[in-house]
Amino acid sequence: MEAPSFYRIALDVMGGDHGPRATLEGARQALMAHPELFLYLVGDEAHLKGLLESHGLRSTLQSRYAIVHAGSVVEMEDKATVILKDKKDSSIRIAAQLVRDGKADGLVTMGHTGAANVAAMKELGTLDGVDRPCLASVMPNRAGTPTVLLDVGANVDCKAEQLAQFAVMGSIYAGEVLGIARPRVGVMSVGEEEGKGSLAVKEAAHTLRTMDLNFLGNAEGRDIWNGKFDVIACDGLVGNALLKSAEALADMLIKGISATFRETWYTKMAGLLARPALKRFVKKLDYAEYGGAPLLGVKGIFIIGHGHSNGRAVASAIRAAFTASEHRVNEHIQEAIGSLLSQAADNTPS
Amino acid sequence: MEAPSFYRIALDVMGGDHGPRATLEGARQALMAHPELFLYLVGDEAHLKGLLESHGLRSTLQSRYAIVHAGSVVEMEDKATVILKDKKDSSIRIAAQLVRDGKADGLVTMGHTGAANVAAMKELGTLDGVDRPCLASVMPNRAGTPTVLLDVGANVDCKAEQLAQFAVMGSIYAGEVLGIARPRVGVMSVGEEEGKGSLAVKEAAHTLRTMDLNFLGNAEGRDIWNGKFDVIACDGLVGNALLKSAEALADMLIKGISATFRETWYTKMAGLLARPALKRFVKKLDYAEYGGAPLLGVKGIFIIGHGHSNGRAVASAIRAAFTASEHRVNEHIQEAIGSLLSQAADNTPS
Repeated sequence: MEAPSFYRIALDVMGGDHGPRATLEGARQALMAHPELFLYLVGDEAHLKGLLESHGLRSTLQSRYAIVHAGSVVEMEDKATVILKDKKDSSIRIAAQLVRDGKADGLVTMGHTGAANVAAMKELGTLDGVDRPCLASVMPNRAGTPTVLLDVGANVDCKAEQLAQFAVMGSIYAGEVLGIARPRVGVMSVGEEEGKGSLAVKEAAHTLRTMDLNFLGNAEGRDIWNGKFDVIACDGLVGNALLKSAEALADMLIKGISATFRETWYTKMAGLLARPALKRFVKKLDYAEYGGAPLLGVKGIFIIGHGHSNGRAVASAIRAAFTASEHRVNEHIQEAIGSLLSQAADNTPS
Repeated sequence: MEAPSFYRIALDVMGGDHGPRATLEGARQALMAHPELFLYLVGDEAHLKGLLESHGLRSTLQSRYAIVHAGSVVEMEDKATVILKDKKDSSIRIAAQLVRDGKADGLVTMGHTGAANVAAMKELGTLDGVDRPCLASVMPNRAGTPTVLLDVGANVDCKAEQLAQFAVMGSIYAGEVLGIARPRVGVMSVGEEEGKGSLAVKEAAHTLRTMDLNFLGNAEGRDIWNGKFDVIACDGLVGNALLKSAEALADMLIKGISATFRETWYTKMAGLLARPALKRFVKKLDYAEYGGAPLLGVKGIFIIGHGHSNGRAVASAIRAAFTASEHRVNEHIQEAIGSLLSQAADNTPS
């Protein structure tokens, strides 16, 4: 008989707009749902102890988590590098150290993305052969499936090899963690025809075509939403602009439509009648379902949730970290990057 | 007394999804609204003659337009270069020739963007000092004002000088044609802090800071929608992806919300009550108001409307071309590019 597997995730309890209120609720939900899960709750010990009771964590769940003290927390207005000097004992950095020391298999934070990135680089570094870690956003599309867009972080001036690495890492994440069989992979360009796009895009597409990957070629902006691709790789400037534009546009449209319902007594009535259906629709688009943004290419599993995350979103992020470690995502990435590199070496004229 | 000014615009009557039905309606609206406007209606002469009556153009307006025959039309599935060989007599090329020959001051088409670009380059070329023409999209933002995003065409791998040129051309267009005083100009990056972004973005920002321009620095994806910037310059791959993503996302959200109203009898009722208010809201977002996308940097005025354009959108595009020629947009661009270039020359170590 195989020994039972246990997966230990470090949760940065302090990060995110709602702090422990959301993260502890997410912790409870995740522990209830996954009996093989163990959590390190990283944060201010005294503060957290007082909150456990009200979050239903002083219960049968008590044996399945441990509090790890952290003396500070990175605020959203802090610089990402604050964890290197002034906030060495911040919850994100302590959580990263748990992964570094092999105590935790992965890390989940709703806090400062830049600080999480710096913590990952400082404590763990990248997988062999990976140039830079890359942040993937999991977006809900019209087909009701997730589209993984990466990089949405800040890897600018990406070379073709980096774009190819993003595509490979995204494909493995989509397959192993999101459960998509043979993920359809594309690279973001200005038109679907082969040969359209920047030099880096064209060269990346050329490399990806030769790989053992379900590579469909060029994607366009609309393909984030139509369900034709599961994974779209792009330069971090492109992805970051796309992500921030989409968030703001969706917010503008949904708030604008809500406002129209407050105009007159009969639109108010209409709003009342339509509210449950509209809520269901907005829920369908909710990122909360998909478990946050993985920081891929790091020696360890890092899932960065949205600052606004509620308990359900935190639980999804924990589930994503858990699944990524269960499915050995980083080993798969390491293998694939290795074959990408050896292929590149083969193609280099000697 | 000054001689009265007349502005002559060549309208590609055949282009666009709705063909002459939309363009002739737009022509009529524009002629009614602007007594100083003269139109060349470029298209199949026999076909058009039969349509004039039903579009209210056999009237007092009759002296203010002329039909110019074109033997073919570029279809959306054609390659952009089709106008160089197989469709030399296409309406878009004939219209461009009217501008080349000084018969028309500007051109308006709802047709194939790529073909319009090729026609512009073939018949007119770029303004002195402009590397490549650039397509600007005029988008409606939350503040109820337009945001000009450029390039949304296909200038990929843009260098810093090109980005700076886009910013300058966009600023002039926003000021002269959209009537925005001291347009607030930005360059698309991954964060608002100075020094964030790609090499080209940082260098372009550096140049733009020294110019006589209301340059605010880096913009982010969300700034397309929040009204903080009037003009945002970016690489064509970034802008193209942003534009196509935004169109698809808005469509997905609006269709998704409409669908929720069809779910049950009371959501249907709600839909009925809310429809006028929702229609007003969607109209506020309508690109039809802003007159299409100018192709800037060309020796001549080119306005490319959306393929879906209705009569009102065509009329807005004609108004934009008319205003651009009335305000001598290209002369202003030429001057500004000249000062950009002389500045660059001054900065070159001798």
